[in-house]
Amino acid sequence: MAVFYRPRRLLYPTEGLMYLWAMEDTTPQRTEVGKLGEFGLIDRLTAPFHPSQSSTIKGIGDDAAVLDTGGDRLTLVSTDMLVEGIHFDLMYTPLKHLGYKAVVVNLSDIYAMNGTPAQITVSMAISNRFSVEALEELYEGIRLACEYYEVDLVGGDTTSSNKGLILSITALGTVEKDKVVYRSGAKVGDLICITGDLGAAYLGLQILEREKQLYMDQPGIQPDLEDQQYLIGRQLKPEARKDMIAAFAHNGLKPTSMIDISDGLASELFHIGKQSGVGAYLEESGIPIHPDAKMMALKFQLDPTTCALSGGEDYELLFTIDPADVDRVRFLPDIYIAGEIVPASDGFTLHTTGGKRHPLTAQGWNHFG
Amino acid sequence: MAVFYRPRRLLYPTEGLMYLWAMEDTTPQRTEVGKLGEFGLIDRLTAPFHPSQSSTIKGIGDDAAVLDTGGDRLTLVSTDMLVEGIHFDLMYTPLKHLGYKAVVVNLSDIYAMNGTPAQITVSMAISNRFSVEALEELYEGIRLACEYYEVDLVGGDTTSSNKGLILSITALGTVEKDKVVYRSGAKVGDLICITGDLGAAYLGLQILEREKQLYMDQPGIQPDLEDQQYLIGRQLKPEARKDMIAAFAHNGLKPTSMIDISDGLASELFHIGKQSGVGAYLEESGIPIHPDAKMMALKFQLDPTTCALSGGEDYELLFTIDPADVDRVRFLPDIYIAGEIVPASDGFTLHTTGGKRHPLTAQGWNHFG
Repeated sequence: MAVFYRPRRLLYPTEGLMYLWAMEDTTPQRTEVGKLGEFGLIDRLTAPFHPSQSSTIKGIGDDAAVLDTGGDRLTLVSTDMLVEGIHFDLMYTPLKHLGYKAVVVNLSDIYAMNGTPAQITVSMAISNRFSVEALEELYEGIRLACEYYEVDLVGGDTTSSNKGLILSITALGTVEKDKVVYRSGAKVGDLICITGDLGAAYLGLQILEREKQLYMDQPGIQPDLEDQQYLIGRQLKPEARKDMIAAFAHNGLKPTSMIDISDGLASELFHIGKQSGVGAYLEESGIPIHPDAKMMALKFQLDPTTCALSGGEDYELLFTIDPADVDRVRFLPDIYIAGEIVPASDGFTLHTTGGKRHPLTAQGWNHFG
Repeated sequence: MAVFYRPRRLLYPTEGLMYLWAMEDTTPQRTEVGKLGEFGLIDRLTAPFHPSQSSTIKGIGDDAAVLDTGGDRLTLVSTDMLVEGIHFDLMYTPLKHLGYKAVVVNLSDIYAMNGTPAQITVSMAISNRFSVEALEELYEGIRLACEYYEVDLVGGDTTSSNKGLILSITALGTVEKDKVVYRSGAKVGDLICITGDLGAAYLGLQILEREKQLYMDQPGIQPDLEDQQYLIGRQLKPEARKDMIAAFAHNGLKPTSMIDISDGLASELFHIGKQSGVGAYLEESGIPIHPDAKMMALKFQLDPTTCALSGGEDYELLFTIDPADVDRVRFLPDIYIAGEIVPASDGFTLHTTGGKRHPLTAQGWNHFG
């Protein structure tokens, strides 16, 4: 519709319902959302909100909200919205994989609080392009993720959309009261740890996007995915680090802070720094990158470390530990110590393998860029 | 994109990643979503899901999911998705009202479990048509609802959309273990009760739609809303029946079953009947309809009772009580006894003011119709 938001003068009903149609636009100014970016917009919109419920332990600003509904465990709530054409491309994303990934992305936020997910709700808006059979494939992926991660689908909403597919998933979980880990707990001297490897999902996406472009230019062509099963698998079917939370519990380790790596290592490190009031010193040599990702980065003429720092969608965990706990981590598989928390005044620095020091810059994903 | 879901042959990664692009469509059949309707689609998609977590008390199939996370109270979770052009029209819906209503719609589901809401999450996808200032108006409405209903905004997700505005809100609440009310508890002989009045929101919408059409045909015209503040207010700024839940507690009343009236009285009565395994006998004279709604229905040449049965968006409560509790309800303001629960074999009957008996038919809102 060409008309934008005309009936602004419908006063709030308590003031009496005066309705003046089609007024000239008297908004004093128009600020584009892209100017603020996702996090700036959220900060601005939520600034007037002040939690007042005693059950709200932690609201906006971490991977999940933390609620105390009585009992021994805290309740965790996290939510994500996935929009076709923004977050996924059905040209190369099978619906079953999309369903699986949409669940995993949310569960990852619960694990990032050191919690255990237990339930999800799934809402979706769908255009009439989707048949019941296609949606059954989507839900088969959702079901497989529920089965693997042991969570129940307990609700949702289904409606039509004017265009494309929109998914909104909310994950609920619990955590023992003394085990919850926030972004805000990092202390100067803590060690920075990373699970798994970074950058592979981004490089998988680059392959899929390249082949899509070739296909669009020349329909009928068969894509050459170069047998890159690891990279493409990381993009299309990521897993959340349920195993790491179990390993922490088994080894009596409680990280001092934690976040899941969805937007790239640099962006997540900034979140921890901002919430904890600290800086970070990162060793390039400590950033785990899979050999396939390194090779593919070079093929795309990209710096592998940049892919790890800014690539996104890895769904690994970034966490900090008290240095006294180093022996609880040192021998655990798939955890890499990659740096140290420093005073905020020292900022965020990358120490390269070449021996140079670079200030880290945030290049997290900005949907509004 | 014209290409629909081509890469179906990407097998599940555990089976090895074989990728065959642009296969011919070998789906054995294509069933249109509209053929099943919203509830039929949900039934079909969720049939393969079987809750296995001990904390899941009630999953899909009521106004809210019911979780036991330990402690004295159960946790309630409800979620709704609102899509521009489907659920709301920004031609006549101020963003502040939209924000308020989007919250209310969700809280209504928590009240319908006899619960108390405490937190919400708000996710939205927005096209670049929306300025920061416009979104601030939306959030001002959300904030006013949070303030009035005493709930905290604790999370959400914000992303861009290719078209329009999509809101997804999840409400969380709690209820004492012995106070939770399901759709499934109605017994033969129970009395059917309705709060407030029905049909007004639907008639408010009819006025707004009529004036929109006139305006579209002849821009510049001033709308004639006939000073129908009540009807338009019911459409643009509904309230949830927080007061009724408080009245139940104050009078020691626990309904045997309850549901909020979002899709029209008939549709909700069918839900209670289906979940409880019963039928219903409804007295037309017992259905509360506001005088303004009656007048406006006649003006639109609509039957006021049909507007109440099938109109939707009233967000009143439909509940049943044990006849022994009738004195706890009889003198409460704004509650109307409108019928009786009967055996399932007797079906659903409307006893008209003219003395006739009609079988009730479901005409709930079908987005996919």
